[in-house]
Amino acid sequence: MKITEIIEKKKKGSALSEEEIKFFVKGIMDGSIEDYQSSALLMAIYFQGMNIDETTWLTKYMVESGETLDLSGISYNIIDKHSTGGVGDKVTLLFLPIMAAAGMYTAKLSGRGLGHTGGTIDKLESIPNFRTDLSIEEFKELVKTNKTAIAAQTLSLVPADGKLYALRDVTSTVDIIPLIASSVVSKKIASGANHIVLDVKYGTGAFLKTPEEAQNLSEIMVEVGNRLCRNICAVISSMNQPLGRAVGNSIEIIEVMEFLKGNMESDLKEITFALVKKALEKAGRFENVQYIEQLISSGKALEKFKEIIKAQNGDERIIDDYSLLPQAKIKYEIKSPETGYVKNIDALKIAKACKNLGAGREKKSDKIDYSAGIYLAKKYSEEVKTGDTIAVLFTNNESAINDAANMVLSAFNFSDKRTHLRSLVYKVIN
Amino acid sequence: MKITEIIEKKKKGSALSEEEIKFFVKGIMDGSIEDYQSSALLMAIYFQGMNIDETTWLTKYMVESGETLDLSGISYNIIDKHSTGGVGDKVTLLFLPIMAAAGMYTAKLSGRGLGHTGGTIDKLESIPNFRTDLSIEEFKELVKTNKTAIAAQTLSLVPADGKLYALRDVTSTVDIIPLIASSVVSKKIASGANHIVLDVKYGTGAFLKTPEEAQNLSEIMVEVGNRLCRNICAVISSMNQPLGRAVGNSIEIIEVMEFLKGNMESDLKEITFALVKKALEKAGRFENVQYIEQLISSGKALEKFKEIIKAQNGDERIIDDYSLLPQAKIKYEIKSPETGYVKNIDALKIAKACKNLGAGREKKSDKIDYSAGIYLAKKYSEEVKTGDTIAVLFTNNESAINDAANMVLSAFNFSDKRTHLRSLVYKVIN
Repeated sequence: MKITEIIEKKKKGSALSEEEIKFFVKGIMDGSIEDYQSSALLMAIYFQGMNIDETTWLTKYMVESGETLDLSGISYNIIDKHSTGGVGDKVTLLFLPIMAAAGMYTAKLSGRGLGHTGGTIDKLESIPNFRTDLSIEEFKELVKTNKTAIAAQTLSLVPADGKLYALRDVTSTVDIIPLIASSVVSKKIASGANHIVLDVKYGTGAFLKTPEEAQNLSEIMVEVGNRLCRNICAVISSMNQPLGRAVGNSIEIIEVMEFLKGNMESDLKEITFALVKKALEKAGRFENVQYIEQLISSGKALEKFKEIIKAQNGDERIIDDYSLLPQAKIKYEIKSPETGYVKNIDALKIAKACKNLGAGREKKSDKIDYSAGIYLAKKYSEEVKTGDTIAVLFTNNESAINDAANMVLSAFNFSDKRTHLRSLVYKVIN
Repeated sequence: MKITEIIEKKKKGSALSEEEIKFFVKGIMDGSIEDYQSSALLMAIYFQGMNIDETTWLTKYMVESGETLDLSGISYNIIDKHSTGGVGDKVTLLFLPIMAAAGMYTAKLSGRGLGHTGGTIDKLESIPNFRTDLSIEEFKELVKTNKTAIAAQTLSLVPADGKLYALRDVTSTVDIIPLIASSVVSKKIASGANHIVLDVKYGTGAFLKTPEEAQNLSEIMVEVGNRLCRNICAVISSMNQPLGRAVGNSIEIIEVMEFLKGNMESDLKEITFALVKKALEKAGRFENVQYIEQLISSGKALEKFKEIIKAQNGDERIIDDYSLLPQAKIKYEIKSPETGYVKNIDALKIAKACKNLGAGREKKSDKIDYSAGIYLAKKYSEEVKTGDTIAVLFTNNESAINDAANMVLSAFNFSDKRTHLRSLVYKVIN
C-alpha cells in the first residue's frame, strides 16, 4: 500500500477502504507517512468528504492508536458529556454534580481551551489548588469512590488525534466535518464511558454557524458512536448569545455556584436540564423535570460540587467565600447608550473581548488570567435604561480595557420592543 | 501575511493576489513555509485551480527564485524548444542541428528522464564522452561560438520549481495544469531564449490523455509566456504511438543520425518539420518546406550534429561507425503472430517494456543501460506476415526479456485492412 495512491484515490473522489484508513493512522503514528502527505490527504478529504464507513474506521483506528480507559469494572452506566464549545459554556460544571446528586456515575476528560475563553479545565484551575492532572489510576479511583471525576485529557489517549489536530491547525484543514466527528467521538470512546451525551452548538459563538451544519455533524457523530457500540445522543442548541451571564474563568465558577444555590439563569438552565434529562434517559433513570429541580433545591448538587472540589484537592471554602477565587484588580462598568430592550448580544464579540482581557489563549503555551472576564448585567429581552450598567469587565490589564469595552458595546443591540425568549434547543439526535 | 490564510482563501475558491503568490514562493525558498503547508495549498489548487493571473505570477516568482541565463548579448533571436515528453521522442536532437544548419541560434537546457525511457540528456550521454554538465559560462560560450548548445538543467535555475516538484511527486499533486504550465514556462524563461517553441503531446504515451487537455495546457503556457514577454507558441500532436522506430537511448541516437542522412521516418519528419517551421517563422526566417528538406539533403544538418558532438567533447566518429555506441549483449527478435496490417502500437506499453529492459529509471539515482531499447521493425499501417520480425529488443538483462516481449506483443494490434496514415499535428497555438 502506498500513501500517494491513497491520496490519489481520495483526490479522485473514491471512498477509502478500512485497510487504507488503518494504514494512514498507523503511518501517522510510526512516522512512515510524512506530514506533507497527511496534509495533502486532509485537503483532499475537505473537498471529497468521507462517508460514514470511512469516518467510523478512522474513529476506530484513532482510538486504537493509544491507550483506552477501561471503566467497565466500575459500572456499566457511566456517562460522559461533551460540548463542541460555546461562549460562557459552563454546563459541564453543572452537569457533573447534578448527575452525581442523582446517583449516576460520570467520568469526564476535558481539554484546555484554545479559543477566546478557557476550557472547562482552565475554569476549574481557577479554583485554588484544584488538581486536573490526575493519572489514569487516580481518575479511575475517583470515579469509583466519588462517582465522578474530571481531569485534563492525557496525551496517551488517542495520540493520533493529537498529531492530526496539530497538523490540521496549521494547514487550514480544521473545518472538515467527518474529521471533527472522528476527533470528538474517538476521544469519548477512549475515555471509557458507555453513555455519551453531546452538546452540539451552532451560531456566532460556535464553530458551526447554522443548525443544519450542527445537525449534520450530530448525525454523523451519533451514527459513528452507535456503530462503535456506544449509547450516544446529541442535543443541538443555539449559541448566538453567551450562555448565562458570566464569560471567563473564575467568574464562571461563581455563576456555577450561584446556579447550584438555586439562582438559575434561564438559558443555562434550559441547556443543562436538556442534557441531564437525556443522560438520565440513556441510563433509564429519568422521571420528570421536578426531580432535576429538586436535586438542586435540596442542596444535593451543591454538596456534590463541594465534594468534587475537595476530592481533587481544591479549596472547597470558595463555595461560601467567592473572594478566595482570583480577583481582578480592575472592574470596569459599561453603561447603556440607549433605553429599550436588549435585542441581541453577539457571542463572538463578547468572546473576543474576553480574550483581550486575558481570559483566553492563542497558543497552548499562553498563560490565562483566571480572574479576567465579562459579566453581562443585562441579557437578551431585558429592559434597559440609558446609563444602566449592561456589562462589567474584569481584568488586570488596564491597556486592554478600551478595545474590550468598544467590542462589548458593539456586541449589544437594542430595540424599542421586547423580544420574547425562545427555546435554545433545536433538536435532539438519538 | 499568513500561509494558513492563503491556504484558506484558495480552499474557498478565491484567486490569490500577486503578493500572496510572491509570499508563497519566497516561503518555499527560505523554509518559512513548511512542506505540509505547501502540500495542503497544492491540493487546494488541484480542486480550485488558478487563473491566468495567478499562473503568471507563480511563473514570474519561480523564475526569480534563482539565477537566469542572460543570452541577450549573443543575439535577440535565440530559440528554445521544449517537449512535454513522449515515447521515442528524439526531436530535440533533430531540431538543434537543423536550426543550426539554417543559421539560427538555439540554446537548450534539458532534464534527465524520470520515466520509462531516458530524457534527451540521457540519450546524448550514450555518446562516448559527450559532456552535458556544462557550466553556465561554458554553455553561453558554446551558444555564442557554435550557435547551439545543450546541457543538463542546473539546480541554480528555478530552484523553487525543483522544490515544488519534489513535493508534488510524493503528495499526488503532479497533475495540476496551472502548476505544470508554470513549471515548464518558468524553466524556459530562466533559460534565456526569447523565442520558445513548445511540443505538447497527448495520448497513451503522454501524460495528457486528450487533445482538449493538451490544448488547455498549451493555451495557458502560451498566454503566460506572452505576458512574461516571450515569443512563444505550442504545436500540439498525438502521442498514441511511439515516434519513429527506435525507443531507448543509443538506438535513438542512431535513428537521429539516419534521419539526418536522409532516412526520415514519416511521423518523426512531420513533428520535426512542424517545430522547425514554427521556430523559423518566429524568427521571421521561414521560406518553404523545401528549404528544410534541403538543410538535410545537403548534409548540412548532419555536419552540424557532428559539430555539436565534437564541441561537447563527444566522440563524433559515431556518425560513421555506430558500433562505437554502447552495444546490448542481447538482441531478441519478436515475430508477428498474424498476417495483415499493423493497426496500432500502444506507446505506453512499449515505454514500459523499454524501462524493464533497462532504458529508463524509477528514481533519480537509478542507472540507465544506454544500450537497452526497442526497435520497431513494423509500424502503424505497415503490412506484416506471420513470422515477420515486428520488433527487436536490446538489453543486457536476460531476465527482463520474457516480460518485455509479452508487453511488446500486447502493444501491437493487427487488422485485415490497411489503415491510412493521418496527420499527427492537432493544432498550433500562437
